[in-house]
Amino acid sequence: MRIERVTNTVSLKRTIDSGTEEQRKTVIEILTEVQDKGDLALKYYTEKFDGVLIEILKVDRVEINEAYQMIDETLVDIIKEAAENIRDYHSRQVKQSWITMKDNGTMLGQKITPLDAVGVYVPGGKAAYPSSVLMNVIPAQVAGVNRIVMVSPPDKEGRLPAGVLVAADILGVTEIYKVGGAQAVGALAYGTDTIQSVDKIVGPGNIFVALAKREVYGNVDIDMIAGPSEIVILADETSLANEVAADLLSQAEHDERASSVLVTPSMELAEQVLIEVERQVKLLPRVEIAEASINNYGAIYVTKDIEEAIKVVNELAPEHLEIMTKEPMELVSKIRHAGAIFVGRYSSEPVGDYFAGPNHVLPTNGTARFSSPLNVDDFTKKSSIISYSKEAFMENGPKIAAFARLEGLDAHARAIEERLKS
Amino acid sequence: MRIERVTNTVSLKRTIDSGTEEQRKTVIEILTEVQDKGDLALKYYTEKFDGVLIEILKVDRVEINEAYQMIDETLVDIIKEAAENIRDYHSRQVKQSWITMKDNGTMLGQKITPLDAVGVYVPGGKAAYPSSVLMNVIPAQVAGVNRIVMVSPPDKEGRLPAGVLVAADILGVTEIYKVGGAQAVGALAYGTDTIQSVDKIVGPGNIFVALAKREVYGNVDIDMIAGPSEIVILADETSLANEVAADLLSQAEHDERASSVLVTPSMELAEQVLIEVERQVKLLPRVEIAEASINNYGAIYVTKDIEEAIKVVNELAPEHLEIMTKEPMELVSKIRHAGAIFVGRYSSEPVGDYFAGPNHVLPTNGTARFSSPLNVDDFTKKSSIISYSKEAFMENGPKIAAFARLEGLDAHARAIEERLKS
Repeated sequence: MRIERVTNTVSLKRTIDSGTEEQRKTVIEILTEVQDKGDLALKYYTEKFDGVLIEILKVDRVEINEAYQMIDETLVDIIKEAAENIRDYHSRQVKQSWITMKDNGTMLGQKITPLDAVGVYVPGGKAAYPSSVLMNVIPAQVAGVNRIVMVSPPDKEGRLPAGVLVAADILGVTEIYKVGGAQAVGALAYGTDTIQSVDKIVGPGNIFVALAKREVYGNVDIDMIAGPSEIVILADETSLANEVAADLLSQAEHDERASSVLVTPSMELAEQVLIEVERQVKLLPRVEIAEASINNYGAIYVTKDIEEAIKVVNELAPEHLEIMTKEPMELVSKIRHAGAIFVGRYSSEPVGDYFAGPNHVLPTNGTARFSSPLNVDDFTKKSSIISYSKEAFMENGPKIAAFARLEGLDAHARAIEERLKS
Repeated sequence: MRIERVTNTVSLKRTIDSGTEEQRKTVIEILTEVQDKGDLALKYYTEKFDGVLIEILKVDRVEINEAYQMIDETLVDIIKEAAENIRDYHSRQVKQSWITMKDNGTMLGQKITPLDAVGVYVPGGKAAYPSSVLMNVIPAQVAGVNRIVMVSPPDKEGRLPAGVLVAADILGVTEIYKVGGAQAVGALAYGTDTIQSVDKIVGPGNIFVALAKREVYGNVDIDMIAGPSEIVILADETSLANEVAADLLSQAEHDERASSVLVTPSMELAEQVLIEVERQVKLLPRVEIAEASINNYGAIYVTKDIEEAIKVVNELAPEHLEIMTKEPMELVSKIRHAGAIFVGRYSSEPVGDYFAGPNHVLPTNGTARFSSPLNVDDFTKKSSIISYSKEAFMENGPKIAAFARLEGLDAHARAIEERLKS
């Protein structure tokens, strides 16, 4: 990590791993096999990649009960409370269908409908996060999605992580399958005897999962393909260097390609934070990952004033933005691009990762310029409603026919004229 | 076209043209050249593909004035009235930023921001539709997008279609460039000296445009890649066969791969519509296109009752749905999947294509199961706001740290603990 004076445009963009030719071929082969052979293919690939033969794909009640035995009761309560907060926040996003009526009898509107069925992918191993279950499932539930299916790769004993099962059970998810990788994505997209197909697939995964989602997109909807995580902290001389450093490191421990950036007009803070980062990183169990991330993708930008710092933040369009300045709320209206804005000293990023309520699935890699956090709208779709009255039709029909002819679409004009003449 | 009794599941899906290897190579080459050589590459490819050397890419006021000379004044007024209707409808979609405050001082919210800059692609030649300008530009304007850029390929004389220029001018679009194809997409995504880059590219185009949009996606946002158009008409014995037939044909004239489907419990109507389609199709200037579409992708499904007909409609998830039954509004609540629902005899599809107000950019090919008409939300993005109070932090901090440790993320827990200890 080093301190730089901002001179030119800055960017958080890192190359996105779009897979090797070999990986793409493997994924297409797996998807074809799942389409052709269904459950048989799911079991074959689970044995091949996860090293375990699964007879019954669906998780049963006994396994859920066992999972509860493995999780501290206090933690179960914490997960429940987090779930309530997340549900409360997302329930405020629900949009209503609407209709507008004109004096001539015309009605125009928008009908909002939840998706019928959604699949949630939960990665296995170290990346099996109960919080990810909460963040992906709850918005779909709040949207009114009728069927929510969870898939996750089993470990060598054929089990799913206890925390993941407990989180799913707390939310009332009952359809959980022990299958992961591209084969799980194939099952969700095309359906098998055991797993009925869904309309949308969400949730993070490794490169095979990402490639498979890209491949089935169009047939079903998918969420964004997330890049590595990033945080930008906007701080001034009133911020505490140890807290800023700790927050930068909480991002860095995720992934060697995660990016942690401080933007500040205070050279003094910049220097203190650098010292603190170097001190604190040594204390972390994931020290190697965090060090690699900080060294390769970490940065401290010193700007001439707070205005320039805000300009830099908007150029970066970060996934997570923390504002730790004297009057942090004053600056929120100046932020044009950020996935989530954490305001003030007590809004450390983990507060939002787990507990406060807003979603932790956020646009990465500068895509906050045009993308949003995962939200209830992502699990609904709109239909326009057009009910034209006879009066409106008779008045406007000839104009509509004329417009159609301007575009050379004669049959469009005739569809109008068939009615005008009667 | 033939009449079928519904026996099994039905689908509107047609294979999507994903381009040849050769076409993909061409597109990547063009995009690379635009990135490397900027305006020079734009002019080179315009001369190569459109057969005209363009010295100044930007359309000037003189060209706009000339365009007005070529369009009937009545039509200008019709375009203006349509634009007002479209603006009125879309302005009802605008969402507000919101914030919720808790007793402990915590504030959570969602900040809604328009995209900074949007590019609208308008195809050339016969597919240069003024209505397409209205439908793509107005939602972006209503969302508050600051910079809207239009690109369109010039004809051999170096001109853009008059109707397109007039429509753009009516909307107040001032940045219009005479460049099309993959090179225009490249300019919008990467920027050149003349054309600054944008955040999102919308609008239809040929296979090269579609492939280029797919290629730059991630760097910028894109709208959906539209498939061929389709209409499903739900009608009963009260519908008039000549009107149903005319509406089916208005879809069929678009494209040989367009699909027109009637679903009805009335065998009598089915038979009359078949006769009417065969009579009316001969009258169309685009008879060859319409006949090919009707023969290959047209269908009349006869169901045992209206309930089964609705089931079929939901399976089809059509782009356009017309309901022409005795009590059409009664059925709207039963429609789960449709891009736009046209209710009643006087809501013929062209009413929505041009004039009523709702958008004509709609999800095709069964994607209405999970996609929406183009709308104001497509030109905004959300940022979560999290402002945690000291009180809330002190109460919940330990729970958040415990949750982080359950997931093995020690630095996350430490970021919380750095603040708890002080």
